[in-house]
Amino acid sequence: MTELPENEAGLPEDLPLVAIRRGAIVESVHRGRFVFCDPSGNVLDAAGDPDAYVYARSSAKPFQALPLLLSGAADTFGLSDAELAVACASHNAEEPHLEAVRSLLQKAGLSEDDLQSGAHPPMYAPEAAKLTRAGDEPRPIHGNCSGKHAGMLAVCAHEGLATGGYRSPDHPLQLRILELVAEVCGLRNDEVLVAGDDCGVPAFALPLKNLATGFARITTGDGLSDEVAAAAARVWRAMRAHPFMVAGTGRLDTELMGSTDLVCKSGAEGVFAAGSSDGWGLAIKISDGGGRAVRPAAVAALGGRGVGVTGDERRATRGLHGEVVGEIGPLF
Amino acid sequence: MTELPENEAGLPEDLPLVAIRRGAIVESVHRGRFVFCDPSGNVLDAAGDPDAYVYARSSAKPFQALPLLLSGAADTFGLSDAELAVACASHNAEEPHLEAVRSLLQKAGLSEDDLQSGAHPPMYAPEAAKLTRAGDEPRPIHGNCSGKHAGMLAVCAHEGLATGGYRSPDHPLQLRILELVAEVCGLRNDEVLVAGDDCGVPAFALPLKNLATGFARITTGDGLSDEVAAAAARVWRAMRAHPFMVAGTGRLDTELMGSTDLVCKSGAEGVFAAGSSDGWGLAIKISDGGGRAVRPAAVAALGGRGVGVTGDERRATRGLHGEVVGEIGPLF
Repeated sequence: MTELPENEAGLPEDLPLVAIRRGAIVESVHRGRFVFCDPSGNVLDAAGDPDAYVYARSSAKPFQALPLLLSGAADTFGLSDAELAVACASHNAEEPHLEAVRSLLQKAGLSEDDLQSGAHPPMYAPEAAKLTRAGDEPRPIHGNCSGKHAGMLAVCAHEGLATGGYRSPDHPLQLRILELVAEVCGLRNDEVLVAGDDCGVPAFALPLKNLATGFARITTGDGLSDEVAAAAARVWRAMRAHPFMVAGTGRLDTELMGSTDLVCKSGAEGVFAAGSSDGWGLAIKISDGGGRAVRPAAVAALGGRGVGVTGDERRATRGLHGEVVGEIGPLF
Repeated sequence: MTELPENEAGLPEDLPLVAIRRGAIVESVHRGRFVFCDPSGNVLDAAGDPDAYVYARSSAKPFQALPLLLSGAADTFGLSDAELAVACASHNAEEPHLEAVRSLLQKAGLSEDDLQSGAHPPMYAPEAAKLTRAGDEPRPIHGNCSGKHAGMLAVCAHEGLATGGYRSPDHPLQLRILELVAEVCGLRNDEVLVAGDDCGVPAFALPLKNLATGFARITTGDGLSDEVAAAAARVWRAMRAHPFMVAGTGRLDTELMGSTDLVCKSGAEGVFAAGSSDGWGLAIKISDGGGRAVRPAAVAALGGRGVGVTGDERRATRGLHGEVVGEIGPLF
């Protein structure tokens, strides 16, 4: 009955990873795939097809931040680690995030008005409610990607590139980022597929195993040129020094970087990537894009690799009266 | 690598039903299953396993409203069709919904204070924002199930049953509802699994094909006792007379009942059910619970049955600048 679509990448083989139980039975199931790779691109472990493409979405932000270091912009402008971390963030728009984005822009001679990240309500519900109560509309700075955009703008300002068109896939900065994504993840430029991300800059699709390889490389430096390895080390050290800046209250990346030695970056549509200086990277895609499945899948996958995140794998689900109605947890 | 959970119902066989495309490739896929049945329970068409269980969630609301008619409460209290429709609703908490719920309660000698539906922000974002701007917290009446709870309370008031404990699975009303769900859907009582719904009343799990059969029966009367058939006819006629009351602005059930001859009721976790007086019922479960997949899956499945909902099957997805970034649409 079902016909598959014409699709360069096909529908990847995946597996049931996370179940939402209610009463005696499973109510809903999230399928997905994950892969651990070493910096050479060898698959150490996998569930589902590691070769099928995935849009890295915001998991690419640590790669997208590399030009800030490589161009010298971070040094010229004297950016702090907190500002570098927010340039890699999908942030909650809590006050420290907004301050860091404003400060990054100011050091580059720019302002909120230069941001073209698009507006959406703060990801952190209390901040969204605060804005609504004040009768204010969300501005681009509240968008979870505003730090990434601020970083891109800072590179343009430093390089004397036009800042008005920085979102275009043909802009020199975006072409440079594409080359870096390919280089770090072990691909040719033309093996990285480019589409539009929701915030208006390029989104990159690549095989899941290459996303894992990229995270293994940035956290070890293996497989990278000395220059890129040094830039990557500054990026992940900034992220690890300021896990709150990368996401915020209650968010998986912030909590995992606070309780493990990993560098973590989630992305929209159920993507998660992490790197360990022990020499591996992990990439996960929840096939249906369901964000609620990322935490149990990530915690279970990391547990299988010996990274313990105690008590965080299964969580009770609760009804509106606070009573337990079920559980969300991994199937593996 | 994956171990299946101990699970009475197993993980049902499903199929890729809906794709979210971005650029050249599919970014995310929702699997699911659907089945068309006649009032005798014969499967007319199916994708995936029609025998596996599904929690009907709010798709059971038309069944849960039957005691309002069968008890005589609706007549005694002089309930309007709009009030009957809101008793079957997962409503947006727009003003007409709140008015109908208040009016239903008032006619039964009750008030908002008797509702135990639990509080959550209005489903309709502008109403939620209005409440936040006013500095108010959501109350039980804003919960999408408040009409169902008001209807249950009205039955209790009419029957002289305790209203304080009406949520308990052992309450006489809830036991009566369980019997009705079983009878209408062609099951023994012990074949219907009971768990807690988020709003605190019983949620019912049953084979997907029985949910479809139940909708075929309520819209045709076939297979039902005369008394239940008459009650069901009043329920669905009220829903069809007031499609806005059943959901609200921008909602699938409201739009489909406005543009087709169907009776439709969606439920949480990706459930959809519809009945046609032509003699069939449809039940859909999106396996991962993803609500965004319900519309394209329902429209495509209905299209296959000759129910045209023109131009509604595929929708562009847009980024924060309003630009098209992809498409959501059925795979079948």
